[in-house]
Amino acid sequence: MADQKKMVEAITSMEEDFAQWYTDIVKKAELCDYSGVRGCMVLMPYGYAIWENIQKELDARFKETGHENVSLPMFIPESLLQKEKDHIAGFAPEVAWVTHGGSEKLTERLCVRPTSETLFCDHYSRVIKSYRDLPKLYNQWCSVVRWEKTTRPFLRSVEFLWQEGHTMHETAEEAVQETERMLGIYADFMENILAIPVIKGQKTDKEKFAGAEATYTVEAMMHDGKALQSATSHYFGDGFARAFDIQFSGRDNKLHTPFETSWGLSTRVIGGIIMTHGDDNGLVLPPYIAPIQLVIIPVAGHKPGVTEKAQELYARLQKICRVKIDTSDNSTGWKFAEYEMKGVPLRLEIGPRDMENNQCVLVRRDNREKTVVDLDQLEVQIPMLLRAVHEGLYQKAVKNRESKTYTATNMADLTQIAAEKPGFIKAMWCGDLACEEALKEKAGVSSRCIPFDQEQIADTCVCCGKPAKQMVYWGKSY
Amino acid sequence: MADQKKMVEAITSMEEDFAQWYTDIVKKAELCDYSGVRGCMVLMPYGYAIWENIQKELDARFKETGHENVSLPMFIPESLLQKEKDHIAGFAPEVAWVTHGGSEKLTERLCVRPTSETLFCDHYSRVIKSYRDLPKLYNQWCSVVRWEKTTRPFLRSVEFLWQEGHTMHETAEEAVQETERMLGIYADFMENILAIPVIKGQKTDKEKFAGAEATYTVEAMMHDGKALQSATSHYFGDGFARAFDIQFSGRDNKLHTPFETSWGLSTRVIGGIIMTHGDDNGLVLPPYIAPIQLVIIPVAGHKPGVTEKAQELYARLQKICRVKIDTSDNSTGWKFAEYEMKGVPLRLEIGPRDMENNQCVLVRRDNREKTVVDLDQLEVQIPMLLRAVHEGLYQKAVKNRESKTYTATNMADLTQIAAEKPGFIKAMWCGDLACEEALKEKAGVSSRCIPFDQEQIADTCVCCGKPAKQMVYWGKSY
Repeated sequence: MADQKKMVEAITSMEEDFAQWYTDIVKKAELCDYSGVRGCMVLMPYGYAIWENIQKELDARFKETGHENVSLPMFIPESLLQKEKDHIAGFAPEVAWVTHGGSEKLTERLCVRPTSETLFCDHYSRVIKSYRDLPKLYNQWCSVVRWEKTTRPFLRSVEFLWQEGHTMHETAEEAVQETERMLGIYADFMENILAIPVIKGQKTDKEKFAGAEATYTVEAMMHDGKALQSATSHYFGDGFARAFDIQFSGRDNKLHTPFETSWGLSTRVIGGIIMTHGDDNGLVLPPYIAPIQLVIIPVAGHKPGVTEKAQELYARLQKICRVKIDTSDNSTGWKFAEYEMKGVPLRLEIGPRDMENNQCVLVRRDNREKTVVDLDQLEVQIPMLLRAVHEGLYQKAVKNRESKTYTATNMADLTQIAAEKPGFIKAMWCGDLACEEALKEKAGVSSRCIPFDQEQIADTCVCCGKPAKQMVYWGKSY
Repeated sequence: MADQKKMVEAITSMEEDFAQWYTDIVKKAELCDYSGVRGCMVLMPYGYAIWENIQKELDARFKETGHENVSLPMFIPESLLQKEKDHIAGFAPEVAWVTHGGSEKLTERLCVRPTSETLFCDHYSRVIKSYRDLPKLYNQWCSVVRWEKTTRPFLRSVEFLWQEGHTMHETAEEAVQETERMLGIYADFMENILAIPVIKGQKTDKEKFAGAEATYTVEAMMHDGKALQSATSHYFGDGFARAFDIQFSGRDNKLHTPFETSWGLSTRVIGGIIMTHGDDNGLVLPPYIAPIQLVIIPVAGHKPGVTEKAQELYARLQKICRVKIDTSDNSTGWKFAEYEMKGVPLRLEIGPRDMENNQCVLVRRDNREKTVVDLDQLEVQIPMLLRAVHEGLYQKAVKNRESKTYTATNMADLTQIAAEKPGFIKAMWCGDLACEEALKEKAGVSSRCIPFDQEQIADTCVCCGKPAKQMVYWGKSY
C-alpha cells in the first residue's frame, strides 16, 4: 500500500471502454479480489466497509419498522425446494448441489440456498398457530449462491451477500402494504443515502420473481445508460403458505392461510454506486456510506508544525465524520490521486501558509471545487460539504438519466433509439407477453418496470397497435 | 406469543436431567428452532439478538486493535483444501461437498468451508508482496459447515455462525504476540461481558487445531462441571504460508515467508451462557448482551394512570438501557414467569401504591432480590443494578468452578474423582501422548488445557510417574 515508489496508475477512460473502466476501478480501489473459486469474490476491507455501512443504514430502517433479524440454514433439502412448483422451475437450473457429507453420499441432496422462501415457510409452518402470532416480520443478512455462467464483480457472481426479508400477514391487504412499505424504504435508501435516483414500479409477469404474484422494483440508470435492478419486493399472496400448509386460527376461530412477502437488496448496489457516480479518476463514493468521508493530507509536512497540526485536526474531526490522515512519505500528488481513486468525498489540505491564516482547503471529490475554510468553522462546514457532495451526485445522476430517457410511439422509432442511444425508452404496452418478447427480439430491450408514475404517451401498444394498458420503461440491463 | 390462555410451562429441573433442561430452555425461551435440514438450526429473533450483541462487542474490540473485516467465498476447491496436509487430514472427514452446479457435474468438487485458512492464504498469496503490506489483520463474520453426526443446538451443529480472524505478520514474534492479544480479548470478553470465568491456556498437541503449531484456548466450566472450549487462537508459524507460496520482500530486500495466526469464537458461546448462568426458572442472561435488559410490568394496569406511568417510564428508560414494556392482558404472574424464562436481568414493577410514593420495585433475575427505587433515581440505580447482576453471575460461576475443581496426584485418585465428581481435575503430566490417551481410556477425561497459571502439584506425571513437565486441567467436555 504505502510503497513510496508506487504510482497511482491511470485507469481506462469511461468513454473508451466502460466495462474495462469498471474492472479497473474494482481492482485499483481495492474493493475486491478474484478468488480461486470460479465466479466468487473476495470482498476486501475497503469494499466490505462500504457493505457494512449499507447494512447499518438499512438494518436501522428495518428495525424501526418492526422487523427482527434471524438466521436460517444455508442448505435446502431438494424436497423442500420442490414444494412450490414455479419457484423450483425458476431456481433449479442455477443452484449448487451438496451430495456428500464427509465420505458419505447423502440420501437426499441439499442445495445451497439461492434464496430462502422455502426455508422461511418451513419454519413459519412450525411457529404460526394463531392470528396472535402474526405478522411475522423477519429478515436475515447472509450470502446466497446462484450458479451463473458469466460473472462480474458485484453485478453478477456465483455467491453474493444480501439481506432477505420474509414476512407473513393475517390479510392480503396487510401483505401488500408491507411490499409497498419495503419498496419505499429501498427507494429512500437509494436516493437519500446512495444518491442514486430510482424509478419505482412493478415488474411484468415475464420479469417477476419465480413464485411471486407481483414483483416491485427500484430501477436505476447507470452512467452508460444501462439499467440496474437495485432492489425488489415481492408479494406472494398465499401460494407458498398453501404449498407449505401454513394455517392459523383467526379472530373468527376458523383456520386461515396467511399472506407472504419477501424483499431483498444485495452487494450488487455497490456495482451501482461505481457505475452511477464514478469518473475517469476512479471511484466517487456517496458520503453517507463512504468508509472514509474525509482524508487529511498535510502539504509540506516536513515544515515545522504542519504534521502536528494535521494530527490535531485528525483527533478533533473524528467526532464529526469518518476521517483518515495520510502522513506517509508518498508525494502529495500521489496522495491526491490515490484518495481520488478511492472516491473519498472530501480532502482536507493543510500547509504552512494555511496555518498562518488559521485555515485549510477542503476539496470536493465530485467536482473538485475548493473551499478555503477557517479552522474554527470545520464542524459547521464539513457536514455542509458532505451534504453538498451528496446533492451534487444525486443531481448529476438525475441529469444523466433525464438526458438518456427517450419516448417511442412506434416500433421503427423504438428500434432506432435502442440501436443508437443507450438509455431508457418510455413506450406504451398492451400487456401481452408476445409484444414484450418481440421488443426483446427486434430491439434488444427488456421491460425494466411499469412505473407507478404513469404517463399516457399514446393510446396504442408500441408493438402491436392494440389498445395500450400501461406505459413501460424499456432498456438494456446489467 | 401473547395468547392470554398460554401458560408458562415448567421446564425440567437441572438436577433431574441437565441435558433435557438445556433443550427445554432453548425451545421455551425461543432461542432456536430445529430446521428441516439435519443438524442445522434456525436462530430465532431472541437467539439472534443475543448473537448481534456479541458481534457488536467483539467487533468493536477487533477494530480497536486494528483489524479489518472482509468476506471470502463459502466454497473451497478440493485442491486448495489439500495444500496443507495436516489441515486436510483434520477436516476432510467432516466437510460437505458440492459436486453439481445446476445440472452440470463440476470438474473439481468444492467443499463448503469448515474454516477458511486455505482461502485466506490463497488471497494473501496475491496481495502480500512487500513488508509494507504487513501485517494483514483480517476478520470475517460468517457461517461454516462441519458434517457432525450428533448435534445439539448451539453446542454442536452442522452449520454454525462464527467469526474467524486470519492474520499475517513479518516476524514469528509478532504473530505469537497477535495470538496472545486475541486470546486476551476473548478472555476479557468472556469475563467482562458474558460473566463467564475462563482459564487461559494452551492445548496439548493432541487437541490442537489441524495444521497449527500451537493452539491457545479459553476454557469455561458449565454448571454441570463439564468444560466448554469457548474460543481458540492459533499460531501457525510459516507452515501454511510455505504451502501457499506466500513471500514478501523484506527490509533487507530479500524474500521472506510471513507468519500466520487465526482465532475464532462461535454461537457455541450462547450454549455456554445458558449452561453457566441458567436455572430452574429458565435462562439467565448476562446484562451486557441481553436483548432486553429490563422489562417494565405494570401491576394492576387497569387502575387509573398505571399503564400511562409505565409507558412514560418506557419512553424515558430507552435512553439508558434496552427496555421492553408488557402491557398485554396476560396475568402479572404469567408475565413474571415469562420474562424469567427469557432471562431478562431486571424487572421493573409499578402499581398504584408505588405511584403514590413516586417509586417502583426493581427485581434482579439472578437472585430475585427486590429494591424499592425512587423514580427520580432510576437513571442511577438501573446501571448499578445491571452491574450488580453481572457481578453476581460472575461470582456464582467462579464459585461453581472452584467447588468442582479437584487435584489428583495418582491414577487411582484421578479415576475415582472422574467417576464420581463432574468437574476439572488438576494433575501433572509428563507431556507424552501415551499418558494423555491413557487418561482418556481409563478415566474418560481429556486434557482441557495447559494453563498459563501453572501450579506445581507434584513432581511426577499422574499417569506414568516420570518427571512431570506441566500441570494440566483434565475433564469431560461438550
